[in-house]
Amino acid sequence: MKIETKTAHFSSPLYLESGRILEPYEIVYETYGELNEEKSNVVLVCHALSGSHHAAGVYEGERKAGWWDELIGDGKAIDTKKYFVICANVIGSCFGSTGPMSNNYPSQEPYRLRFPVVTVKDMIRAQMQLLSSLGVYHLRAIVGGSMGGMQALQFAVDYPNLADDIIALAATYATRPWTMAFNKVAMEAIRRDPRFKHGNYEINDFKEEGLDGLAIGRIAGHISYLSPDSMDEKFGRNYVSNDGLFELFGRYEVERYMEYNTNNFSRIFDPLSYLYIVKAINTFNLTRGYDSLHDAISRIKANVYLISFTSDYLFFPSEMEHIVKMMKRNEQHCSYLKVQSDYGHDAFLVEVDKFEDNIKDILK
Amino acid sequence: MKIETKTAHFSSPLYLESGRILEPYEIVYETYGELNEEKSNVVLVCHALSGSHHAAGVYEGERKAGWWDELIGDGKAIDTKKYFVICANVIGSCFGSTGPMSNNYPSQEPYRLRFPVVTVKDMIRAQMQLLSSLGVYHLRAIVGGSMGGMQALQFAVDYPNLADDIIALAATYATRPWTMAFNKVAMEAIRRDPRFKHGNYEINDFKEEGLDGLAIGRIAGHISYLSPDSMDEKFGRNYVSNDGLFELFGRYEVERYMEYNTNNFSRIFDPLSYLYIVKAINTFNLTRGYDSLHDAISRIKANVYLISFTSDYLFFPSEMEHIVKMMKRNEQHCSYLKVQSDYGHDAFLVEVDKFEDNIKDILK
Repeated sequence: MKIETKTAHFSSPLYLESGRILEPYEIVYETYGELNEEKSNVVLVCHALSGSHHAAGVYEGERKAGWWDELIGDGKAIDTKKYFVICANVIGSCFGSTGPMSNNYPSQEPYRLRFPVVTVKDMIRAQMQLLSSLGVYHLRAIVGGSMGGMQALQFAVDYPNLADDIIALAATYATRPWTMAFNKVAMEAIRRDPRFKHGNYEINDFKEEGLDGLAIGRIAGHISYLSPDSMDEKFGRNYVSNDGLFELFGRYEVERYMEYNTNNFSRIFDPLSYLYIVKAINTFNLTRGYDSLHDAISRIKANVYLISFTSDYLFFPSEMEHIVKMMKRNEQHCSYLKVQSDYGHDAFLVEVDKFEDNIKDILK
Repeated sequence: MKIETKTAHFSSPLYLESGRILEPYEIVYETYGELNEEKSNVVLVCHALSGSHHAAGVYEGERKAGWWDELIGDGKAIDTKKYFVICANVIGSCFGSTGPMSNNYPSQEPYRLRFPVVTVKDMIRAQMQLLSSLGVYHLRAIVGGSMGGMQALQFAVDYPNLADDIIALAATYATRPWTMAFNKVAMEAIRRDPRFKHGNYEINDFKEEGLDGLAIGRIAGHISYLSPDSMDEKFGRNYVSNDGLFELFGRYEVERYMEYNTNNFSRIFDPLSYLYIVKAINTFNLTRGYDSLHDAISRIKANVYLISFTSDYLFFPSEMEHIVKMMKRNEQHCSYLKVQSDYGHDAFLVEVDKFEDNIKDILK
């Protein structure tokens, strides 16, 4: 499968929900598969908080595949022999699209904390511009999990005629205070870290030694991506330090996991981007801009497929079921799959085998 | 009701589970009510992570009552007209009993990180010494929630003849990785905070401006004490900043709550004590020292009363139910109450009205 990584440059302004504008801006994206002549075979894939446009395939010289490689590829559920798949890096991210460490034109200085707050609505508006620039005005489907699922649902509401099918996994209709509280750990840990310097750090400051604040915040993140049962299974009460049980900083396996993953993460992810994306998640609310949630949901014309995971402790199945009930009452097309899983919120990334057939059927 | 706050001094060593000793040591405790002549009316109350020996009553000149004042007092469920109630500050704490900021005798210097790791077993061993010093060799009941419940259960296993009744709320038989992960946020946030100085801070360093690391860790704590539903009810998606929704550091009500409570906490609680007590919670495991959990539980001779809360996201009802099943199979006396609550783990402190009658009945 061929991976094409490209950058689209936009010199006309992107009007943001806040009233501010982003101008100019860039969107980095990847495509897999071939666009057919009628441009009728496009599937848009939306990424989550820590994800990027690299959804599938393996870059030359690398070993790690894109974040949804199990799902996207030749002969896979999102079949790149049939579909032209697009995945764009969201604005605000640190993987190439315009974000807080991009230069604040016309200066050669990064925006930093002057970057405007972006929302999920803004993220999809930017992707609409990308699609226009590619001459794509209709999508076979939009698919995403977590913040990617928020984008898919927001597309369904804001642009009812855009896609035939909307597939949203492990998401919600509006972020609840529970999730905001987890995000708050990250926001405070980053903000109060002296090395963060109120956003005035240098771009390479954290390459060697990641920002502690981001690592600490990410521990809270990982808690919310797992579940009590998945942690029992993954780690149990295993103790891994040679120091013995009675050393204050001796570690249980779950502690080692948290340290290892979050320290790595804090070297590759930009802390300002983390703050901005977390803010976008907090402000996500399908109702905003409409009279009510019912009003927003009623706009949807696409077939909506919702997938939740029984052990998801970040966005609970009941949240998806709230949308399902509303759409059913409206006699809109909505189909729901609750996947039995012990993997928590992460299941949308790691238990692809439990829902890939479902997605294959939808895209048949 | 009369509050007596006292300090007991011990010059003989306390042998710790780690093999290390604490010598000398002090235990600060309070009593409420009068000890009868037969010394047969003693109820021991055990406190949780952030609690102290001040369980009931109001100090002169203060407004805030002890942490379980609703439950303990004249005519209340734990009736101080009938019972002599003792509540001791655990070793390792920062409220008067020997802890990491106590002087490492014979030096006049605090232990800091040289303080030995203490466990829940050690905490109750220290309380056994206190009881001996008071000439109390039998307890009518031991009552505690969260880490206090752990202590109550550990008493039941380690000292089967000590108490008639054991009442444990919102606890577990062994800390699961889920809880360790929440604790990990606090451990890392404290440890990596430059102002923590590897434990070499001065005792008044955080009086004015609390340690950020402790405040950040405490946010994670508060998440685990609440629940998704309790947060919906308490905060909803209310936005409280005048800054407008599109300010990066503008705050939702849940965020303000987290900031306010944790900043206050970080000015009054010692970060080293927090590390040590959190470690004690992580290492809690009724099985340790016995062949199996079944072996440990089988030792219990007291009547055990377990109370869990449906929305407890820190120690789930299923964990209590595991103990209930085991005791029932053994034909030991065990009675279980699952309280319907939206208040999460905190319910054991804030919804006393939902279980006080139960406790009153037990102590009849």
